[in-house]
Amino acid sequence: MAANTFGTLFRVTTWGESHGKTVGVVIDGCPPGLEITEKIIQTELDRRKPGQGRLTSHRNEGDQVKILSGVFEGLTLGTPLAMEVENQEYRPKDYEAMKDVFRPSHADMTYEAKFGRRAWPGGGRSSARETIGRVAAGAVARVWLKKKFSLEIVAWVEQVKNLIAGTTDFSTVSRQDVYANEVRCPDPEMAEKMAELIDRARKDCDSVGGIIKVVIRNCPAGWGEPVFDRMDAVLAHAFMSIPATKGIEIGSGFSCALMTGSEHNDPFSMENGRVITETNYSGGIQGGISNGMQVTARIAFKPTATIARPQNTVTSKGEPFVLKAKGRHDPCVLPRAVPIVEAMAALSLADLAMQQAARI
Amino acid sequence: MAANTFGTLFRVTTWGESHGKTVGVVIDGCPPGLEITEKIIQTELDRRKPGQGRLTSHRNEGDQVKILSGVFEGLTLGTPLAMEVENQEYRPKDYEAMKDVFRPSHADMTYEAKFGRRAWPGGGRSSARETIGRVAAGAVARVWLKKKFSLEIVAWVEQVKNLIAGTTDFSTVSRQDVYANEVRCPDPEMAEKMAELIDRARKDCDSVGGIIKVVIRNCPAGWGEPVFDRMDAVLAHAFMSIPATKGIEIGSGFSCALMTGSEHNDPFSMENGRVITETNYSGGIQGGISNGMQVTARIAFKPTATIARPQNTVTSKGEPFVLKAKGRHDPCVLPRAVPIVEAMAALSLADLAMQQAARI
Amino acid sequence: MAANTFGTLFRVTTWGESHGKTVGVVIDGCPPGLEITEKIIQTELDRRKPGQGRLTSHRNEGDQVKILSGVFEGLTLGTPLAMEVENQEYRPKDYEAMKDVFRPSHADMTYEAKFGRRAWPGGGRSSARETIGRVAAGAVARVWLKKKFSLEIVAWVEQVKNLIAGTTDFSTVSRQDVYANEVRCPDPEMAEKMAELIDRARKDCDSVGGIIKVVIRNCPAGWGEPVFDRMDAVLAHAFMSIPATKGIEIGSGFSCALMTGSEHNDPFSMENGRVITETNYSGGIQGGISNGMQVTARIAFKPTATIARPQNTVTSKGEPFVLKAKGRHDPCVLPRAVPIVEAMAALSLADLAMQQAARI
Amino acid sequence: MAANTFGTLFRVTTWGESHGKTVGVVIDGCPPGLEITEKIIQTELDRRKPGQGRLTSHRNEGDQVKILSGVFEGLTLGTPLAMEVENQEYRPKDYEAMKDVFRPSHADMTYEAKFGRRAWPGGGRSSARETIGRVAAGAVARVWLKKKFSLEIVAWVEQVKNLIAGTTDFSTVSRQDVYANEVRCPDPEMAEKMAELIDRARKDCDSVGGIIKVVIRNCPAGWGEPVFDRMDAVLAHAFMSIPATKGIEIGSGFSCALMTGSEHNDPFSMENGRVITETNYSGGIQGGISNGMQVTARIAFKPTATIARPQNTVTSKGEPFVLKAKGRHDPCVLPRAVPIVEAMAALSLADLAMQQAARI
Repeated sequence: MAANTFGTLFRVTTWGESHGKTVGVVIDGCPPGLEITEKIIQTELDRRKPGQGRLTSHRNEGDQVKILSGVFEGLTLGTPLAMEVENQEYRPKDYEAMKDVFRPSHADMTYEAKFGRRAWPGGGRSSARETIGRVAAGAVARVWLKKKFSLEIVAWVEQVKNLIAGTTDFSTVSRQDVYANEVRCPDPEMAEKMAELIDRARKDCDSVGGIIKVVIRNCPAGWGEPVFDRMDAVLAHAFMSIPATKGIEIGSGFSCALMTGSEHNDPFSMENGRVITETNYSGGIQGGISNGMQVTARIAFKPTATIARPQNTVTSKGEPFVLKAKGRHDPCVLPRAVPIVEAMAALSLADLAMQQAARI
Repeated sequence: MAANTFGTLFRVTTWGESHGKTVGVVIDGCPPGLEITEKIIQTELDRRKPGQGRLTSHRNEGDQVKILSGVFEGLTLGTPLAMEVENQEYRPKDYEAMKDVFRPSHADMTYEAKFGRRAWPGGGRSSARETIGRVAAGAVARVWLKKKFSLEIVAWVEQVKNLIAGTTDFSTVSRQDVYANEVRCPDPEMAEKMAELIDRARKDCDSVGGIIKVVIRNCPAGWGEPVFDRMDAVLAHAFMSIPATKGIEIGSGFSCALMTGSEHNDPFSMENGRVITETNYSGGIQGGISNGMQVTARIAFKPTATIARPQNTVTSKGEPFVLKAKGRHDPCVLPRAVPIVEAMAALSLADLAMQQAARI
Repeated sequence: MAANTFGTLFRVTTWGESHGKTVGVVIDGCPPGLEITEKIIQTELDRRKPGQGRLTSHRNEGDQVKILSGVFEGLTLGTPLAMEVENQEYRPKDYEAMKDVFRPSHADMTYEAKFGRRAWPGGGRSSARETIGRVAAGAVARVWLKKKFSLEIVAWVEQVKNLIAGTTDFSTVSRQDVYANEVRCPDPEMAEKMAELIDRARKDCDSVGGIIKVVIRNCPAGWGEPVFDRMDAVLAHAFMSIPATKGIEIGSGFSCALMTGSEHNDPFSMENGRVITETNYSGGIQGGISNGMQVTARIAFKPTATIARPQNTVTSKGEPFVLKAKGRHDPCVLPRAVPIVEAMAALSLADLAMQQAARI
Repeated sequence: MAANTFGTLFRVTTWGESHGKTVGVVIDGCPPGLEITEKIIQTELDRRKPGQGRLTSHRNEGDQVKILSGVFEGLTLGTPLAMEVENQEYRPKDYEAMKDVFRPSHADMTYEAKFGRRAWPGGGRSSARETIGRVAAGAVARVWLKKKFSLEIVAWVEQVKNLIAGTTDFSTVSRQDVYANEVRCPDPEMAEKMAELIDRARKDCDSVGGIIKVVIRNCPAGWGEPVFDRMDAVLAHAFMSIPATKGIEIGSGFSCALMTGSEHNDPFSMENGRVITETNYSGGIQGGISNGMQVTARIAFKPTATIARPQNTVTSKGEPFVLKAKGRHDPCVLPRAVPIVEAMAALSLADLAMQQAARI
């Protein structure tokens, strides 16, 4: 474990505060010979950037990625692959008022407790801009996993507040389906309702939470490193490291509590000469190791902490304060979190794949 | 990350299969000067061992711990603290029949996919005996956390199938309350009903799942290492590495999906000169760092995979097989999982405490 | 261990090839509250950059460092501190001729064996430009070590070929003495002779090696993490990771082979209420832990592999080839290696200091 | 880096003080399917144990290894492989007198500075008994390296004080040659003289140092992880972590300081369709990566710190004390260090081999 580094062999280290010069990432351990261009990375980054519609904040970040090292003549070298995105719109005045205020359910108070100080403009390191490095690195991991294993990762918004996407056949949802609308929900009708709900929350100076589902296809059997780095544990770590997450489920998740063993056990059988399970309550992972079935997970995101209505709080000096947030913010983080979830899944799997490959 | 090692500074490495000579653990990085005796460790181990009543398997394991190193004249030396427990009752014949069979929702198939072979007697490394090392190490971490920070960790069974413990005041549940009954549920009436439910499941040749709640008190503000080793992410990793877990919640967990920001945000206020939050949907963690409130989590455990009724499966050669489990097994893992949850919490917190201390 | 990351708590990750956009570094784990400016970093970088005189290559690199993150209002935040330097003078044509040639005693052949490809312009990742990130990070570590412990690190050129600096009193050599001349040798007369020798080597189309001495003062007793991360082992790792190194000595080094125990043992005695050793063959380290005396080491650097005279070699296709190096290169790496040695010592000690501090 | 763990993928964690119940080791990441028996391990352990002749201490340790986990039906499982050796001859009274005394050039003073206390009987963790775990783990690494790559590691005593083994052809020295005599020097005549010298040192109540040479054959090109985990840096770390080491050389070592580039560069040429170097001053490593030639290193060991003549020192209370060592000790550590050097080389290479394999 190491604060700003994720992974053992496909090691990703991110940097950057919302107000600094750049946010970025170094991938150490990236396999050589991968075709990586700024365009591939940019496509993924564009999926998380704000200013895409009525649902997200109207900040125009640009977020043009630059590859700084590790790629030569269009192919990865195997050396550290660094990428960065400039922070273009730093307006400290927007945040000056909140310099000494602890915003409720934000990280202001805890960063100050930890480090004795904090970068108050725009949340500093706790800003969601930090995830740019994750998405950029995840894009590289995706290329490798796709090329080497035909592995696919698709995430989508399954639930916003009480609105739940219609039962979808997980095995067929494509990223095209997901990114077809700005909610990132592959059920277009429900997506429209969710968009309205989010918009209403904004007008109401409030925010809403929800659930993202993620599915991993063509994951070979045998990945995951028991006992501590089981695939489910690594995914839980990865997903819970995304800002605003409060819960993680693998396969059956919390619903397993209500089931009996005879209901929950996944019977093995054969299909085309390959061992499969007839149900998949295990979520593709048994004993912490992938079994060749689809790996499935669900992640709960809390409602955005920044809301435009007055809130009671205290200052860093311990004085009462009524906070009214200004500036730009999303009333629902889920649409923008979808590519981040996909990225963290990709980083986890690339790392576990390499760990398994090392065991020759 | 490293397969069988957990932690960066308080580093715990476990070993052992169910059938081997011993199971054990080495703690590297244990602070010097702690009073550690075999009795302290044994008390914790006794909380997870089977054969304690009608609910758990009737195997008499003994499980006497031996301290092998790292303690001198009753105090830790700061050098590696190794402990082991002998495997006394290895009866390979009990398992011979399952040598070539993939037990449903067990790790037989996946260990074979991963390693090309597996220790078939008693589950080998995927046996819950592996957790002995975790509990032994957790006992040491507890001593340090208690001595240094007055930190307390209490876990209990909150739900077994559809039976839910009555609303308990989290701030007062003690380990004494929890370990007063064999279900490890501090609501004695519900504990009795849960015991009956588990007993019925056994008679029905079936098993049941449930939920464990864990609360951490007196955790100082400032622990947790964003962005990847946030306290919530580390706890999620730790808990999801326990066998049979399928879901993790911090604070509000999945219920946050249904809330608005104005409901979910925890207002700050002052209490005795200290910043507190008036509600605790954050579960004591904000931006991945502890805020001084109680840290709270919930963990879903699936129903035991081993059940005494016939199940369809396949052999390692891909032939259909009807499996009927013999031998000893628990119809509900939760009572024995309680001390394991506490141990993983202790290991996580000891490590994060040391990481914070290093930042002088 | 992790390829391009050094350290456990003060973790430094570097990136960059000689031909890429930038070379840079991220420090993860940097203590908060340190006064760090680009000027402080630049001062150190200027000590390693070429084009400083007759002894080093005439390339004008500029090497202006930019702090990208981790510093706010002049103080470190405790978050990742990233820095980069642009590669300004990339002239691929200078290197085109060597695209398919394995330069003797360079890393061309081995990078190709390892990664299947390599960045042929200017050595790519194996270029000494990689060390810019180390020196920048080392500058930050120095600030912390100086502030917190009054710790000082001074390295100098002790020997170039057969020229050896006059017996210097290690306890008084200052960085000012060292950087007073372009050879970085605190014996000014010998420095002049060394400069002439290096200049002759250049005219002779050849190169020379030598030895750098490094001394660490005010290192508290108690640092170093036996058994594997002893201070001497970590320093050996750190120094041997610098390009062109072939040997490392701590304290008495290889001369210990000729001594008896009664000669080599350092008698303990008291001085001002503090335990000291009367001699220091141990080099300030006993059992892998600092004992409070000066930590001393020596490092052997080979003669620069790039020489302007024709050399027999083979191409990547296995054909014989006569190579005659063009372009800029130093006939002796030692003067520029001095700040790199100091940086690696600083990174090692900052990390060990934090590891010791964690053991509260 | 982690105090008592070595390696990233082939991870070895040792435990044990001289006075505790056992010394031992866990290997995490050991490839599955290796034929490992206690006999194979014991053979290596017997090479380092004392009581083998006139040169080493007359302590009869037994040192019977037990495999505790990770091996099933004679083959490794891929799970943690733990091994232990009991400490049989603990005689605290032998050491009682030294309880409060800092033995010169031992680790008593520094362990106390680091941990605030120490296990005074027999050196505790700083005792050479700690290396038993390394040798046991190294034996496993050897089996894998031999099976998978036909890789061979041979070390021997090259120099004791001023006695130097006759020029040996490195490519032909076998372990059989080395272990044919108790000095572990493949030059039988010089071995005899060395034995006499060591014996004289003992009679003289003194001790002697020397140099061990190690050669690695059939190491594939491409191993080593620049920039920080170069093969030379990892070997330097590994060797310098062995008690009593003061210097490390790779290839030409310190002699490179006296050479010019035209002398030191290793010309490439072809041999049987394979790229070779005509000389090997590089010691088989270029740019931190193996080039397919023999990897060569030399390690300086100081004279044993324990000597039977009176020495001036201080107590832990700072009082002057005249120490006269009692008990058993070797007047020269080199013969017993030979298998330890081989083990550390094996552990380093197994780990680097797995890291390279992961890069698929």
